[in-house]
Amino acid sequence: MGRVTARRRVLRVREGHASYRPDTLAAEEPMEIRVGGRPLAVTMRTPGDDFDLAAGFLVSEGVLHRAGDVAGIRYCAGATADGGNTYNVVDVGLAPGVAAPDPSLERNFYTTSSCGLCGKAGLDAVRTTAAWSVAEDPLRVGTDVLAALPDRLRAAQRVFDSTGGLHAAGLFTADGELLCLREDVGRHNAVDKVVGHALRSGLLPLRGSVLMVSGRASFELVQKAVMAGIPLLAAVSAPSSLAADLAADSGLTLVGFLRGTSMNVYAGDERVHHAAEAGRHSGGGS
Amino acid sequence: MGRVTARRRVLRVREGHASYRPDTLAAEEPMEIRVGGRPLAVTMRTPGDDFDLAAGFLVSEGVLHRAGDVAGIRYCAGATADGGNTYNVVDVGLAPGVAAPDPSLERNFYTTSSCGLCGKAGLDAVRTTAAWSVAEDPLRVGTDVLAALPDRLRAAQRVFDSTGGLHAAGLFTADGELLCLREDVGRHNAVDKVVGHALRSGLLPLRGSVLMVSGRASFELVQKAVMAGIPLLAAVSAPSSLAADLAADSGLTLVGFLRGTSMNVYAGDERVHHAAEAGRHSGGGS
Repeated sequence: MGRVTARRRVLRVREGHASYRPDTLAAEEPMEIRVGGRPLAVTMRTPGDDFDLAAGFLVSEGVLHRAGDVAGIRYCAGATADGGNTYNVVDVGLAPGVAAPDPSLERNFYTTSSCGLCGKAGLDAVRTTAAWSVAEDPLRVGTDVLAALPDRLRAAQRVFDSTGGLHAAGLFTADGELLCLREDVGRHNAVDKVVGHALRSGLLPLRGSVLMVSGRASFELVQKAVMAGIPLLAAVSAPSSLAADLAADSGLTLVGFLRGTSMNVYAGDERVHHAAEAGRHSGGGS
Repeated sequence: MGRVTARRRVLRVREGHASYRPDTLAAEEPMEIRVGGRPLAVTMRTPGDDFDLAAGFLVSEGVLHRAGDVAGIRYCAGATADGGNTYNVVDVGLAPGVAAPDPSLERNFYTTSSCGLCGKAGLDAVRTTAAWSVAEDPLRVGTDVLAALPDRLRAAQRVFDSTGGLHAAGLFTADGELLCLREDVGRHNAVDKVVGHALRSGLLPLRGSVLMVSGRASFELVQKAVMAGIPLLAAVSAPSSLAADLAADSGLTLVGFLRGTSMNVYAGDERVHHAAEAGRHSGGGS
């Protein structure tokens, strides 16, 4: 499709010198996700891997759990003036017996919440909609393996270096082998693309795997990992308080500020082992 | 309210040595925005400046244009088990004559689009809902002023250095004087908080001002700047293709990769002047 990047003319200023030149930007376009012909959500995304994105979004929403839940996915041709296809509307057909998303919930879990909306409602919503638990996953990962992930993610990014504008999500084995990499202007979309690819490959739940993201770890990203059955989420940058709370509540291991041999483990540290294991003693820790 | 940050116990790994210690995280909690008692949207945000956030969100949606459009804003106490208030539900009362948001549109402009959804639909939607134009704004800013903004934004961030997890948005005068800074786990929320503060202070449209954001420039952030009447948006990182397209279409000046004395101007470069003005010649430029 050739729309992952776009060229634009820019005025480039460097040390007081300015010149016009072409620049490569990350492409961003809206994509509407439909289920059985019914519009469900619109996301701003980088075109490419659109069927994976739609499938992964519906895993996060609790609609899809296995490859057989999908009857088919297609671009919805239609109502442009010339009868063409914008490739920005994707329709997911559900297999018989798969419940369509409740239209009253749509894009978030909270619209039916009472006035007492709080973070705990979000934790409860994930707990009640997840099809499997990551709490019992026997995964164990060495800090040496984790330390190698950021460089592997960067090395595998084809687009990042030319635009500087794309988030990446990479799925790894417990040994640090890259299984799947996806990029997007939206970090949640990059994760949905990875999860959707795994669903369509018959790999859910993703037991024993590690998800690495290039940015921060929000509540939403932890939720997506839990819904896909991924027991460990690692991020280059900081997690939020609710991300750490959901990870602890769900039994997911959450690693943040993963840079070189440094990292912080915010939840589920029993899965992380390191060479100097005897050194894990300070401030009342076990 | 004291919820901008939260303390959590983490396992800290540095060079093979691991120890438990307390860490400071950016707080993240859901907030529901209601208009006249009717739920409109939920956003994951960092608590604080919640009334500004709600007001700014409604500016972006085309509902509010001036301070007088708001009859009142309040936290919605309610249905927690103990009858308490979570401070996570904000209700905006509209002044007489102000049209409530169309429920069929709700959180995005696209749900009524035909199958031919495309980026142009987004540009059209902004063009038809904006109450004023930024195209004729006579603002001119020197590259020396722009180069100073990132450091001023960082210096003014009270929370960033302790958590590393918050996006910032700063509103500046054409001379680089900081008018308003807001932070959030979501960059769109940080901008909404700035715009909402300006609305409630009677400052909209924000003619002659500069908005600086700590991250990337998406379509959504350009849209928010246009809806607030801000003629120049500067970002530390990259813009997307649709952000550049919307900026060009709206007459907004878009600066990206603003780092030290380096920057790229993706649209509206007639507003940017620099000491070596004579150097602006290359590749067919004016």
